[in-house]
Amino acid sequence: MSRKPTAEIISIGNELLIGHTLDTNSHWIAKHLTRLGWTLDRVTQLRDSLDSIKSGVRGSLKRNPSVLITIGGLGPTHDDMTLAGISRAIDKPMRLNKEALQLVKDHYRRLESKPKLTKYRTKMATLPQGSVPLPNPVGTAPGVKMQQSKTILFSLPGVPSEMKAIFRASIIPYLESFHTTRPKEVEIKITGIIESALAPILDQARKIYPRLYFKSHPRGRETGIRPLILLHIYNIEPGAEKEISEASARIMLRLAGIRARSSLIMKK
Amino acid sequence: MSRKPTAEIISIGNELLIGHTLDTNSHWIAKHLTRLGWTLDRVTQLRDSLDSIKSGVRGSLKRNPSVLITIGGLGPTHDDMTLAGISRAIDKPMRLNKEALQLVKDHYRRLESKPKLTKYRTKMATLPQGSVPLPNPVGTAPGVKMQQSKTILFSLPGVPSEMKAIFRASIIPYLESFHTTRPKEVEIKITGIIESALAPILDQARKIYPRLYFKSHPRGRETGIRPLILLHIYNIEPGAEKEISEASARIMLRLAGIRARSSLIMKK
Repeated sequence: MSRKPTAEIISIGNELLIGHTLDTNSHWIAKHLTRLGWTLDRVTQLRDSLDSIKSGVRGSLKRNPSVLITIGGLGPTHDDMTLAGISRAIDKPMRLNKEALQLVKDHYRRLESKPKLTKYRTKMATLPQGSVPLPNPVGTAPGVKMQQSKTILFSLPGVPSEMKAIFRASIIPYLESFHTTRPKEVEIKITGIIESALAPILDQARKIYPRLYFKSHPRGRETGIRPLILLHIYNIEPGAEKEISEASARIMLRLAGIRARSSLIMKK
Repeated sequence: MSRKPTAEIISIGNELLIGHTLDTNSHWIAKHLTRLGWTLDRVTQLRDSLDSIKSGVRGSLKRNPSVLITIGGLGPTHDDMTLAGISRAIDKPMRLNKEALQLVKDHYRRLESKPKLTKYRTKMATLPQGSVPLPNPVGTAPGVKMQQSKTILFSLPGVPSEMKAIFRASIIPYLESFHTTRPKEVEIKITGIIESALAPILDQARKIYPRLYFKSHPRGRETGIRPLILLHIYNIEPGAEKEISEASARIMLRLAGIRARSSLIMKK
């Protein structure tokens, strides 16, 4: 496969947008997608609002990612409206899903001798038509999988332990089935140089190694000389490991020539 | 003002989407916007790609937020392409900005006796036509402000210390000029109840207090009973402080009635 499969994430919850909660869920999934050789193109954080979810999901589907993962808003309460928003975005009505209802029933049977199926509980089994529920090994609300044109849409709950459990059990096997190769990466720690002096060195390297991706991250304040610049070099296509070694050596030699110090770390 | 002004954030950088860097910048700005009585409607994380930035900025401007803040990609290197992307999104050519060039010159004059204006340095002073540069008190790349239809667009560098310094010096005064009132908020810590049992209590409270916003956050695994649910209650319109007190008291009394424990914290 020459072109790597692409993904988008939509993370839903007012708690993110009022600055209460840091969106570590997207970050965790981003790491996994990268490790599996997938390209995450966009992350969107949206409010708990039907209009906002509808518009965000429609916008994402128009870009045709291979996979769209939504996080959050699958619980029993009124403000959990992800699936209703998706239902509007894709014009599929909400229906009680028998398989999902069984998962919810099984969950409460472990908690109560005679579990009652309140409307709050059946809400978690009411999914857009055509959805496949994904078992939640550590909580109640099932995950959801559905096909929409060229995109597979996954919906995961926002509680991190539940999000991770469903991602590991149901999404990783799907992502792995594409057999993509993981990108190789090195990190070079550089001191004794300012970023604008590093720029021409990187520009030259980019011309010589167009298949590689160079990204410099200054750390600390620029009071004269940055205390530290971290330079990451990846290959963006399979089989460019040798080029990474050559590019790293070339850059470190040029840095030594202008008396900047650098050290290389191979990322696993 | 009855309707609170709205904001969007676009955070740019491959390091976010490969899971290297957690987007703490957006989170920090989200907190400040909320404190100042602004509503943050959407956060988007985009890759360092002209097409991606153009499409993300256009999409945001179509929604007409009062303010759009972009973070990242203002540095001297080739992969910092935020302003070029914005230039394409708003159809304004890139021009060397005299005022910005002066800021860049002043910066390097403090570092070097005879600063040279390399193309990497003038790049940071090349802005979409009609831009106003914002001084960067702790780094080189100036921030940028421009008006686009009903939206004021601010661009900030991605290095957190620089982002914060420009935000404090140039954006907070602008946000404060809208004289919005900060939302009031309480947090109730609840133990001894499952989320689906809390749901009907919250539904009733929502009906009685439609101006308030109730959001429950389960913490920990749902092995039978959640160890802890954090319930946040905000007013979404000015002057609903009394309603928050009444709603909190009502909910805590009902919780006591079903032997769940709760304690209230007034957020400042």
